[in-house]
Amino acid sequence: MITPQSLRIAVIPGDGIGEEVMPLGLRCLKAAAAKFGLALELTEFEFASCDYYLKHGDMMPEDWHSTLSAYDAIYFGAVGMPDIVPDHVSLWGSLLKFRRDFDQYISLRPCRLLPGIPSPLSNPGDIDFWVVRENTEGEYSSIGGKIFEGTEREVVIQETVMTRIGVDRVLNYALNLARSRPKKHLTSATKSNGISITMPYWDERLKALSAERGYDDLKIDKFHIDIFTAWIVLNPSQFDVVVGSNLFGDILSDLGPACTGTIGVAPSGNINPEGKFPSLFEPVHGSAPDICGKGIANPVGMIWAGQMMLQHFGFKDAAGAMMRAIEDVLAEGASHIITPDMGGSTGTTESLGAAIERKIL
Amino acid sequence: MITPQSLRIAVIPGDGIGEEVMPLGLRCLKAAAAKFGLALELTEFEFASCDYYLKHGDMMPEDWHSTLSAYDAIYFGAVGMPDIVPDHVSLWGSLLKFRRDFDQYISLRPCRLLPGIPSPLSNPGDIDFWVVRENTEGEYSSIGGKIFEGTEREVVIQETVMTRIGVDRVLNYALNLARSRPKKHLTSATKSNGISITMPYWDERLKALSAERGYDDLKIDKFHIDIFTAWIVLNPSQFDVVVGSNLFGDILSDLGPACTGTIGVAPSGNINPEGKFPSLFEPVHGSAPDICGKGIANPVGMIWAGQMMLQHFGFKDAAGAMMRAIEDVLAEGASHIITPDMGGSTGTTESLGAAIERKIL
Ligand SMILES: CC(C)[C@H](C(=O)O)[C@@H](O)C(=O)O
Ligand SMILES: CC(C)[C@H](C(=O)O)[C@@H](O)C(=O)O
Repeated sequence: MITPQSLRIAVIPGDGIGEEVMPLGLRCLKAAAAKFGLALELTEFEFASCDYYLKHGDMMPEDWHSTLSAYDAIYFGAVGMPDIVPDHVSLWGSLLKFRRDFDQYISLRPCRLLPGIPSPLSNPGDIDFWVVRENTEGEYSSIGGKIFEGTEREVVIQETVMTRIGVDRVLNYALNLARSRPKKHLTSATKSNGISITMPYWDERLKALSAERGYDDLKIDKFHIDIFTAWIVLNPSQFDVVVGSNLFGDILSDLGPACTGTIGVAPSGNINPEGKFPSLFEPVHGSAPDICGKGIANPVGMIWAGQMMLQHFGFKDAAGAMMRAIEDVLAEGASHIITPDMGGSTGTTESLGAAIERKIL
Repeated sequence: MITPQSLRIAVIPGDGIGEEVMPLGLRCLKAAAAKFGLALELTEFEFASCDYYLKHGDMMPEDWHSTLSAYDAIYFGAVGMPDIVPDHVSLWGSLLKFRRDFDQYISLRPCRLLPGIPSPLSNPGDIDFWVVRENTEGEYSSIGGKIFEGTEREVVIQETVMTRIGVDRVLNYALNLARSRPKKHLTSATKSNGISITMPYWDERLKALSAERGYDDLKIDKFHIDIFTAWIVLNPSQFDVVVGSNLFGDILSDLGPACTGTIGVAPSGNINPEGKFPSLFEPVHGSAPDICGKGIANPVGMIWAGQMMLQHFGFKDAAGAMMRAIEDVLAEGASHIITPDMGGSTGTTESLGAAIERKIL
């Protein structure tokens, strides 16, 4: 990808703590842009939120696709107010639609133990791996239905759909990513012993691709998802690049960050590698209604997502500065600065985000 | 259930370390039977193993159902030799067939931090919860297929199937179990924000049942499976009874035991509560080809499964003695007795199993 001169970014705060962390994310992005002379054009949208839904009866306007297609990327907070709008309505009306309709078929999620954050594991070792998650098909199929509704005979069916194209492209992406890393180690999440059709297919394609394309230089292994989660806790430093289906990638990319202390720090890139559609960058945490309004949401996931966005477009210096700023502030670990989820006392979204912003400048 | 005078038990060691831990499980069961005057009739079968498959081209003889129906319970080791027989063939030809055809619709799995075993968590707190797993339907449906095989257009589909009957009975079982516990707390695993048909149905049935049947005395909550796995690591002592679909229960019942130090200790009851068919008791760990033949497999999962079997049939004293024996030996934690997965040095399957046997007698 050729690094563009400027970036047009659609900003969507969404709901809950999405609205609270977004301002800090933007301040850090602007700080990096100012320092490194990048032109960022930031346009905020109020759609893709439950507030919008309550006003308009839909999560987004009809022309959302063409509106957002004009942007290089989407900088996204979080969606969901489950007490008011069912989660599957709000999510399938926004985030999951973006992922599918903008063909953001790679979800890329770093899992890294940052300096200064206490891990819940007594011997975490050096946790530093990438989760590569299939992001458009699989278990998140949205097809299926209900029959004999409201009776004893009621049956509900949902289909997991895997396509050759969908599986191969995410496996190839993960294989290439593993090749670019010093450890050259790829671990695939499966469940082919129990889920007897789609999961053996996933295994089969990994075997075929790694043979066909000559990935002999890589160490490739696989774990069933049940024991995989056990290994994440028992020995997380064994992982380098991890690849999984939509659901398994979802699970591993919450569990992994939990082992690094808090999921509040984890970012996520929803990437359309060809750049045909905008990619989307967001924190892994959701709208977190339980802590919303308290001003204590961890802004690091949002800021790190912005860092990934700059990195994605090749703005290496700016991205590097943002990452160093995050690491430095966390390493200092001042308890009046860092948020409670990381062991802070009086630290807030504002204090932590502002401290990172200052380090960037 | 009326406690029977004697038990007829079908013994199926299976493959790999299943064959190594089974003898110790049997010795401990026999010790408990001798001490408390129970009549146990133990009949060993070589089918439901990959060795049997290699000889006969099938995992089990045609009349397996009628043969095993004559027993009160099945005491089961582990199945799988993935280098020789694909896992979905061996498992769907044995264990998963038992669960479905003997309508063992409850999988019951304790997750408890035993004295003396080091947890990988630095602050595990008091981990002590039950996983109640749906065991016959859901994601383990075995229906679906492949189209456009071998071409670019290849599509593979697997259907998750939930029935009103299947969902209600496992939720009711879990609700009742929660009611019998001091904390009276049930947590349901869901993923209704992403898996948009079956999982909202699961949530809906839990809501309906807990309202209909007046479970106001219980604390009932739910987590999406991704954040659920994170909470298991960050705060496992919050859980009391956990209920999940076939797949989610599978994941939580490996991850939970990992947080208690090793999945080698965890047992599993596959229960047909009506007693129309035999229930099956097994360790949670599988055949573990990687450590097979070394004599170091942890026998506690197998022994504890035997303990659950006696408990299930109401042999409380014998079951109590077995549990105390396990706890005492682990609490002593002699490194020449306990197996390496629990921090032992020269301990083996034999030394640990024999120590527990001696304590029972
Ligand atoms: C071996 C496998 C099919 C099985 C399952 O997935 O149910 C196992 O993991 C378990 O938990 O009993
Ligand atoms: C909010 C939810 C639908 C989403 C997902 O399951 O993908 C989230 O958990 C994530 O990981 O991005």
